[in-house]
Amino acid sequence: MINRFCKTPLWECNDELVRVAQGEKPADLVIRHVNLVSVTTHEILPDADVAVACGRVAYLGLGGHTAEHCIGPDTRVIDGSGLYATPGLMDSHIHVESAMIGVAEYARAVVPHGTTGIFCDPHEVGNVRGLPGVRAMFEDARRVPLKAMMTPPSCVPAVTDIEDTGASITAEDIADTMTWDNVVALGEMMNYPGILSREQNTIDEVRATLAADRVVTGHFPSPDRDRALNAYVASGVSSCHESGGFDEVLAKLRLGMYVQLRQGSAWLNLPGYLPELVASGVDTRLCLLCTDDCHPNTLVDEGHMDRVLRTAVELGLDPVTAVQMATINCAEYFGLARDMGSVTPGKCADIVLFDDLESFRARTVIIDGDVVAEDGRALFDVPPYEWPDWMTHTMDIGLTPTAETFRVPVPGRADGTARVRAMGITPGDTLTRDIVVEVPVRDGALLADPAHDVLKVAVFDRHHGAEGTHSFGFVTGFGIHGALAQTVSHDAHNLLVMGDNDEDMALAARTLAECGGGEVAVADGKVLALVELPVCGLMSTERVEVVAEKVARAREAWAQMGCTMPSPFMTMGVMSLACVPELRLTNRGYVNCLTYEMEPLLVE
Amino acid sequence: MINRFCKTPLWECNDELVRVAQGEKPADLVIRHVNLVSVTTHEILPDADVAVACGRVAYLGLGGHTAEHCIGPDTRVIDGSGLYATPGLMDSHIHVESAMIGVAEYARAVVPHGTTGIFCDPHEVGNVRGLPGVRAMFEDARRVPLKAMMTPPSCVPAVTDIEDTGASITAEDIADTMTWDNVVALGEMMNYPGILSREQNTIDEVRATLAADRVVTGHFPSPDRDRALNAYVASGVSSCHESGGFDEVLAKLRLGMYVQLRQGSAWLNLPGYLPELVASGVDTRLCLLCTDDCHPNTLVDEGHMDRVLRTAVELGLDPVTAVQMATINCAEYFGLARDMGSVTPGKCADIVLFDDLESFRARTVIIDGDVVAEDGRALFDVPPYEWPDWMTHTMDIGLTPTAETFRVPVPGRADGTARVRAMGITPGDTLTRDIVVEVPVRDGALLADPAHDVLKVAVFDRHHGAEGTHSFGFVTGFGIHGALAQTVSHDAHNLLVMGDNDEDMALAARTLAECGGGEVAVADGKVLALVELPVCGLMSTERVEVVAEKVARAREAWAQMGCTMPSPFMTMGVMSLACVPELRLTNRGYVNCLTYEMEPLLVE
Repeated sequence: MINRFCKTPLWECNDELVRVAQGEKPADLVIRHVNLVSVTTHEILPDADVAVACGRVAYLGLGGHTAEHCIGPDTRVIDGSGLYATPGLMDSHIHVESAMIGVAEYARAVVPHGTTGIFCDPHEVGNVRGLPGVRAMFEDARRVPLKAMMTPPSCVPAVTDIEDTGASITAEDIADTMTWDNVVALGEMMNYPGILSREQNTIDEVRATLAADRVVTGHFPSPDRDRALNAYVASGVSSCHESGGFDEVLAKLRLGMYVQLRQGSAWLNLPGYLPELVASGVDTRLCLLCTDDCHPNTLVDEGHMDRVLRTAVELGLDPVTAVQMATINCAEYFGLARDMGSVTPGKCADIVLFDDLESFRARTVIIDGDVVAEDGRALFDVPPYEWPDWMTHTMDIGLTPTAETFRVPVPGRADGTARVRAMGITPGDTLTRDIVVEVPVRDGALLADPAHDVLKVAVFDRHHGAEGTHSFGFVTGFGIHGALAQTVSHDAHNLLVMGDNDEDMALAARTLAECGGGEVAVADGKVLALVELPVCGLMSTERVEVVAEKVARAREAWAQMGCTMPSPFMTMGVMSLACVPELRLTNRGYVNCLTYEMEPLLVE
Repeated sequence: MINRFCKTPLWECNDELVRVAQGEKPADLVIRHVNLVSVTTHEILPDADVAVACGRVAYLGLGGHTAEHCIGPDTRVIDGSGLYATPGLMDSHIHVESAMIGVAEYARAVVPHGTTGIFCDPHEVGNVRGLPGVRAMFEDARRVPLKAMMTPPSCVPAVTDIEDTGASITAEDIADTMTWDNVVALGEMMNYPGILSREQNTIDEVRATLAADRVVTGHFPSPDRDRALNAYVASGVSSCHESGGFDEVLAKLRLGMYVQLRQGSAWLNLPGYLPELVASGVDTRLCLLCTDDCHPNTLVDEGHMDRVLRTAVELGLDPVTAVQMATINCAEYFGLARDMGSVTPGKCADIVLFDDLESFRARTVIIDGDVVAEDGRALFDVPPYEWPDWMTHTMDIGLTPTAETFRVPVPGRADGTARVRAMGITPGDTLTRDIVVEVPVRDGALLADPAHDVLKVAVFDRHHGAEGTHSFGFVTGFGIHGALAQTVSHDAHNLLVMGDNDEDMALAARTLAECGGGEVAVADGKVLALVELPVCGLMSTERVEVVAEKVARAREAWAQMGCTMPSPFMTMGVMSLACVPELRLTNRGYVNCLTYEMEPLLVE
């Protein structure tokens, strides 16, 4: 595939590189005396020199040869003595929205950690604002050196006819995106049932992508690794980041899939299969690394792909193999290896100098020959992005929430109790049990029952204003007093509110409606924590450090309100995610996620 | 890159494959109980089933799962018990012309040996008939199942202004070929001095190829593995088959080049570096295998890529690694790995069933799901190709050679001797020494001197008729009595004649002029052996077995005439090859191949 992510295409500057390599013209940059990690031979080459011109590697001085002949009066020379040079790290599958920041700010956060390329699926923005939103999001990305390669979301909406989203993307739209200069693949094909049943739009999306000479990235969590997995792969889906154990990883590699080994903020999969993968001795050429999602706090406190490499090496993976997974293997999968993924002549000069291959502490990060980060600090900066209004005004619930809004009337009953369907939460699990609980009835309306940890839940369509619907349900397992609300709520990103009293729920909903979306914690009529995410109700306009701090404060608020669950925000955020069993609440009401039928709230 | 070498593009049949994988529709072909060589994981998977539909793999039954559900009443079932299934073998660099047959006949010769794809550089036909000739050659190829992927010749003529060829190919022509559906890369860029000096047409050919998203294959025999090799790679050339030792191989791999390890008929490089490569333990992901040239006798007597694999394994290479080099690595280099190179769902069903991974005796060869060869015999056949007249009438020397034609007058001298420049041949080496010898002068003309092993040589421009020139020289080292002539003579493929008397030389030249070119041996007024190659003077219209027999007879004739040299035909064939030192004779006269200046015949 023609790579648009470079300073100069090779066919425009190859004569210049030829001159520089032979010492006929000085290089722009020379790195000297570095331990070069050769991902093509799986070696560490000591005391290597690297000369760079036109944003590309022009010359490697190996085995005693030096790049002295490439140094002129204006050549920047970096002494790499004691350091390890690797190709720039690539995250093979990432949703930037999980970090609650835009791509430019994301770049500022991850580039200092050695990440020079990300393959991003803007699935969340797609669900809120469709392809125009995706386009706006990646206009922001063009302002920074990070190579933000785009994989348009394939499943918008994720599930049809059971909830209302802000947009939908068709196979025809996908075909159009394949002409965009930043599109390198189709985003994760979560709709594997659609593939297996040959649902037309799903098959057509895959076809449009393959016919455009791009790969289809996957998402296959089904336990059927025989016929279903074979069919899924045969359809043209060629990668997957959803594997729980080594058996799954191996089954996919044997069928020729690239497997994206994942270590995100929420899904920490490496310990689950990496030691076995290492022990097996199988070829890892089709293994990539990815984070899938990185919360702002993970980025600020732990890092990005450097953290993944660190973990992989801690788990026993050979460090050069680990680097291959984050560089050349990834570039090969996406058809970009002619330009990226190795530090060799002609390739883009995306290079990271690390202290060692254990801590993976990045000293210097170079993209297209420019030093873009040093000692953990980005050397580039851009002003806050000027988002168009329609990207920052996406809270359209068509009413001003009051306590009355949260009243759930029970026809023909004034007081007493009622049996209602509820979502039973298991801490640390995304599954929600389909259970029945008894809740109080007062003045003809259903109430939460904090004494028995039963909270009321409401979901408001925030995309269709007065025409939108909202629905009510109950949940058990969070154990809080007060109310929480969020607009990240997957995958329709509607306004999700839960609480033990209608007043606090109303305040929480109102607060988010006013600030354009985000996450809020309320108790006893007071806002305890607020993370404003005005861009599509998903992303902040602030610095990642500020967002991380606010998220940390929200986490404290959860605890303060009585929740002892790990990652309660995430767990709450999938309460509407209708593609995971068993019972979910969308703006249209309860969905049985095994039968995909709507279910009533009241149980006789 | 979009692959045109398949029965059906995946995007047209993926729904069918999904059905077959799930047992909703029967497969066309099922292979059962085979040991599957997994080139993606580097494993041998026992008792595997493979189901095929639409020419592609639809399902792999592994780990106890079977393809029984894919078998219908019309499904062909092959019992693979005890056999080893590999992806179809690919020769990453081959000149079909070396086998002296057209591509369709070549297919009949190599497919039964497990070769399903070849990457061919029609350099020789290009030099005789230019791109129209290349196009005609590959029209023939379309009639057979072998995937003959084309890399247009980059160096036609190989060297300018010192000889006359039948055609020339410019960067503009190359840009045009990049739109042809069978072109996958640029043919070997032999003109590395042109790259290093940034000769415009050379650089432009590389640029046109890269801008068309294709790779530039290389040819870098220079000992300068530092600056020159770096510059060559930085220009965009990404592979090389010209390596003599392991140091060269390693140097190229470290710079990110794909290295085509070669075991041809004439150049047997594997023993020279493979044992060291194995011992080094470096990653072999960028290692490919190739033959470069295969003479008809090698194909008939020893095989093709099976022979290369056999040799590689004998030399200590792990057999699965060897198979990777001939399959997935090759497909990845050319950007075809999404369609070829592994037996996995969605890929073209190019599969070989071997007896074992040592003899590599191919039992069954499958291309695009069709069984195309069994037990060493091709199951396809095509009538002789109907070549256009201009492809079979390329002997245009503008005269009828007689003994008088070979008279080399010496101005101002009637009898005695004269000092002349001569090419000194070292047996088994392509180098020709620039020497001076004394030859007899009779009746004012130079004669050969068989008593001192000095033969007369003549080169006739055979492309420009009466306007063409011819020249004379002398050679020592062959030790024959009689005359030999050939039109394969690299790279201009002019008519090359050598002998110890003018009468036999005339008969040899006349014989080839009459039959349209080829190779002939003459002694004492008799034709001892003749290999007719009427297609461009390079290729026969007969069966490979017939050609091999005629070539063997010619070899006997050489011996009969007194030559003890190994491969004398090859050694003779490079006497005009002006890109190799030291002294060569072209139709324009002697060329000093160190200075690229013409040299006179007579030495004062």
